[in-house]
Amino acid sequence: MPRPRSAALSSPAPAGSDQAGTSTGPVRLGPGAKAALAPAAAEVRAGFWSTRREVNARISLPQGPDLLESAGNLHNLRLAAGAVEGEFRGAYPFVDTDVYKWLEAASWQLAKEPSGGLETEVERIVSLVADAQQPDGYLNTWFQLVKGGERYKDLRWGHELYCAGHLIQAAVAHHRATGRPQLLDVARKFADHIDSVFGLPGSGKEIDGIDGHPEVETALVELYRETGKRRYLELAGYFVDRFGHGLLGGEAYCQDRVPLREADTVEGHAVRQLYLLAAAADLATETGDAELRAAGERLWRAMTTTKTHLTGGLGAHHDEEDFGDPYELPNERAYCETCAAIASVQWSWRMALLTGEARYSDLIERTLYNGFLAGVSLDGERWLYVNPLQVRDGHTDPGGDQSARRTRWFRCACCPPNVMRLLASLEHYLATSDTGGLQIHQYTTGHYTGDLDGTPVAVSVETEYPWQGAISLTVEETPADRPWTLSLRVPQWCAEYRVRCGDTEYDQHDAPVADGWLRLERAWAPGDRIVLELALAPRLTAADPRVDAVRGCVAIERGPLVYCLEQVDNPGGGLDDIVLNRTAPLAVRHRPDLLGGVTTVVASGHRRRIADAGWWPYASADSEAPGTDGPPIELTAIPYYAWANRQDGGMRVWLPTS
Amino acid sequence: MPRPRSAALSSPAPAGSDQAGTSTGPVRLGPGAKAALAPAAAEVRAGFWSTRREVNARISLPQGPDLLESAGNLHNLRLAAGAVEGEFRGAYPFVDTDVYKWLEAASWQLAKEPSGGLETEVERIVSLVADAQQPDGYLNTWFQLVKGGERYKDLRWGHELYCAGHLIQAAVAHHRATGRPQLLDVARKFADHIDSVFGLPGSGKEIDGIDGHPEVETALVELYRETGKRRYLELAGYFVDRFGHGLLGGEAYCQDRVPLREADTVEGHAVRQLYLLAAAADLATETGDAELRAAGERLWRAMTTTKTHLTGGLGAHHDEEDFGDPYELPNERAYCETCAAIASVQWSWRMALLTGEARYSDLIERTLYNGFLAGVSLDGERWLYVNPLQVRDGHTDPGGDQSARRTRWFRCACCPPNVMRLLASLEHYLATSDTGGLQIHQYTTGHYTGDLDGTPVAVSVETEYPWQGAISLTVEETPADRPWTLSLRVPQWCAEYRVRCGDTEYDQHDAPVADGWLRLERAWAPGDRIVLELALAPRLTAADPRVDAVRGCVAIERGPLVYCLEQVDNPGGGLDDIVLNRTAPLAVRHRPDLLGGVTTVVASGHRRRIADAGWWPYASADSEAPGTDGPPIELTAIPYYAWANRQDGGMRVWLPTS
Repeated sequence: MPRPRSAALSSPAPAGSDQAGTSTGPVRLGPGAKAALAPAAAEVRAGFWSTRREVNARISLPQGPDLLESAGNLHNLRLAAGAVEGEFRGAYPFVDTDVYKWLEAASWQLAKEPSGGLETEVERIVSLVADAQQPDGYLNTWFQLVKGGERYKDLRWGHELYCAGHLIQAAVAHHRATGRPQLLDVARKFADHIDSVFGLPGSGKEIDGIDGHPEVETALVELYRETGKRRYLELAGYFVDRFGHGLLGGEAYCQDRVPLREADTVEGHAVRQLYLLAAAADLATETGDAELRAAGERLWRAMTTTKTHLTGGLGAHHDEEDFGDPYELPNERAYCETCAAIASVQWSWRMALLTGEARYSDLIERTLYNGFLAGVSLDGERWLYVNPLQVRDGHTDPGGDQSARRTRWFRCACCPPNVMRLLASLEHYLATSDTGGLQIHQYTTGHYTGDLDGTPVAVSVETEYPWQGAISLTVEETPADRPWTLSLRVPQWCAEYRVRCGDTEYDQHDAPVADGWLRLERAWAPGDRIVLELALAPRLTAADPRVDAVRGCVAIERGPLVYCLEQVDNPGGGLDDIVLNRTAPLAVRHRPDLLGGVTTVVASGHRRRIADAGWWPYASADSEAPGTDGPPIELTAIPYYAWANRQDGGMRVWLPTS
Repeated sequence: MPRPRSAALSSPAPAGSDQAGTSTGPVRLGPGAKAALAPAAAEVRAGFWSTRREVNARISLPQGPDLLESAGNLHNLRLAAGAVEGEFRGAYPFVDTDVYKWLEAASWQLAKEPSGGLETEVERIVSLVADAQQPDGYLNTWFQLVKGGERYKDLRWGHELYCAGHLIQAAVAHHRATGRPQLLDVARKFADHIDSVFGLPGSGKEIDGIDGHPEVETALVELYRETGKRRYLELAGYFVDRFGHGLLGGEAYCQDRVPLREADTVEGHAVRQLYLLAAAADLATETGDAELRAAGERLWRAMTTTKTHLTGGLGAHHDEEDFGDPYELPNERAYCETCAAIASVQWSWRMALLTGEARYSDLIERTLYNGFLAGVSLDGERWLYVNPLQVRDGHTDPGGDQSARRTRWFRCACCPPNVMRLLASLEHYLATSDTGGLQIHQYTTGHYTGDLDGTPVAVSVETEYPWQGAISLTVEETPADRPWTLSLRVPQWCAEYRVRCGDTEYDQHDAPVADGWLRLERAWAPGDRIVLELALAPRLTAADPRVDAVRGCVAIERGPLVYCLEQVDNPGGGLDDIVLNRTAPLAVRHRPDLLGGVTTVVASGHRRRIADAGWWPYASADSEAPGTDGPPIELTAIPYYAWANRQDGGMRVWLPTS
């Protein structure tokens, strides 16, 4: 793939700005930021993620405008602009965000690869957005068209500031990618309007309020970074700290039960919780707020320890899209909304920058390869809103957004353009640098450039990861006489690795990991080669015994990938009777023909033959186990991200062992 | 308790009727019924259920009018009658049914025990209902007041016929109990109106349609039985057979995906499914429709085999209150709506009458003692809408109707008056007779009267069941020279029993059970004594291995009772770390002081001490089990029905064994 346009990498700061951004990424750092690490520039040039991003660029993104047209989103903008007549279309007050997220995705795509066709579409839709804006800056087609212009009367469910947030995020991306001011001007005008309306009692502002769905908060921090206007940062801080004080009735769903600073676990609607936490991390980074940082660290740990599925998926309940109790991690009813996986990546990345700790990128890796990527089909045309870890034999599906079958688009179409924007901006989450060196968080064939107080350092990477564990790095750019540290994240799942620097090889005892980082400090020279070899033997994983849903089960994993059984690969019966033999060895077979090329894991097991026990499925625990073991069979597991790309049928991540 | 008033037991058939009812029960038989068994009269005079019914009669029922007043239901009736001015109150189109179900409950209560105060309240509220009826018979306060009189435009969600159904059921109960015509006249007028509007295309009726929530169907069959007017039966048959043909968009939720005659499992909203199936059983009984009977038998088996919780609770999902996939039987997210348990009893009873088979009453017993009875607090003042089988340590509850904590009343208050009407009419589900004898389905201290072609037979029963297994029966009334069969249901859970007839004792080998019935054929004489002794040793129960939610767990049961651990009885730590020692013996301790007097079961176990495993709760299945076993502890289990009557805390039915 071509190199990014220099305009995108070094778009000039706006006149009058004191901005000190270090990358094109969606997370920059403001001038006074207290981050441990700064985002570093990266390019994905080949390999696993390059393929996924090609599908995103060639299939998913170009289809966006037609889908937004047929779903009515663009029609609503024209309607609000007075350009056409008709009725508002769509079922939700936040349908504008589908447009904004697509614009953000397309902008990140343009930042790395010019495309006249895409650029034309972007500018056409930017104009629709600009035309729909009201003179004082307000913009929300639902409230303009359906609610007769009534504003901010239903902050709990209205999503007005949420929509504003996605507009601002899109505008920042559009400005960073193209340097053009049009959408940024719309966003600033709206942000200025919001700033004129919302504030603490006594501030002279009309409304002391927050939006039931956080999003504007991260967006305002980014707008601050893009424009240098500190009042956007202050407005974000105001919003973040007003959650938890009952302004929305005190509901956990809306993040209003308890302030983040006092919370001891994640709760309520998962995406709302995670967007709010991302904003808190941004604020802690920009302001050095130690209490917000501590809250983020505490809540992240509570989430990963007790409320995260093996896939990185988040959210246990269908009915409020929310977190459940600790260790309440169901399989078939796992909600694991695709947007929650995306929000988790966004929050963890901010925590990684803030703290410099590798575990945040461990979770990002797990989420990207599993809970996130399952959200889009291999052909880029069908989507999952929820991402269960089990689909039973004979599953009957209600259809709709909460289906466990892939769908072309949703009534609530938040996930597809959210996937598009994360895939299009993936390089923003791969590497960081600090004054001491460059840190590689995620491995992909590409090019990574850090900044040591103005001195560039760069390495290129070649790897077949995640199918193979070898990662070859070549120093491309380095100061001649200044040692620096190349830090390689050794993933949390990795029990064994070797690293070769030039002719010297070390194992994990000679070159131990400290807090997840393998730190190689050298006076590097261009052309220096490092090969990190992560052992990729497939493994069986068990859960904390408090995870009731998977008692007596194991999951198959290999590298960062969680595996699953699908019915189509395991004929001769259903999946619900399968038992895995945990003492038999696991075999690995790469299948270039299958699902775009995947490495399968082959295990041994059998099907349980369960005798008809009459009409009641419960019996004395002392009686013989009902049924007998069938003959040994081979069990073929595929990576979880690739499930639901063939015919419908059962699927299981967790497999009974007896 | 006093005997029922003779007026209730033998209310005369209306003039011109060909009715041949055999009891005061909510299920009678029409003149051409093809039932195997006829309902028999029963009285509950003392013991377990008598206590629960006393609380219902003295506490729950008398509080009804005040609750209906403060929730606005009675206000809405006055408003519809034009007697007052104001706004409709309540959030749902079906709030009238809370009134109707209370009237039905109060009528059954009056049928067994006169009460001037209750009667005055009943007649006052009957008048409110009558006054709210429109001249052509239509009655629904939501549509009259909120929808400007629009009718039958939203059959999917409007609940108009559902409301009509509960009105009709209440009217039938009121008429059978008091002999007064006023409410029955209201119901007939509404039923005639419905009959004039709904029918097949080509019938000349305005609408070919069904209501999204079945209920009017059983009610119309009962109205046929009460009035002898066959067109009510025909209208019920029309409605039942129009489900599954897409009139409501084909949704499983509304029972519209597939006709019952073709269905192979229960699906969709559990209460809707069960009410529809009860109507199908009524129709099969009245018309001899073999296909509907076969569908009922098939679907009942599919339900009990794959979609029923150990407690008899039904409905796996919170978000559509619906059945899940086969063997999808979660614990903490079990929905198990109290109304679904009630609907299950109603359906199973109709199947018991239709087929004569004991297994239907096995499920009734299990449901009554567990999934149903948990729905009301011991003091009769607080309710559960959902009935989970697990509440975790530190459970955070969203509150509202779906709370796992007892609530004084609900926004959607369907369950409390539904509990009241089942408790008030419980004697209708206890016994049957046929030309060959009397069948006792449920055991309680009381009096049972059957009818052998006009010849009465009666037995009295004394028992401390379910705390003790001895059931003493005395023949009270019998023809002198005609042998008949006393059939005693030996519950499905019972592995060992003895029976003594006079001086002769038999064990289960000498007097074996056939299809659940112990049949004793004799030429009985008044005063003959029979003692059935059911062995009540506590037992550990395991589930079919396809029930993923309880893999590696057992439940404690004793007799018909499912047991659970509650935090308050098991201090020294939470419940989520408890492991039961399945090889240790179980002890029984009767505790007259506890929870109104319960027999507890004491088991052995330990708490698992789980070491802090860092931030990720998943690890290699080969590693040491995380944590060690704590010292042995005594585990005290209480009957599930009595949970949530003390302080909040964890609760578990299914207990890990390793």
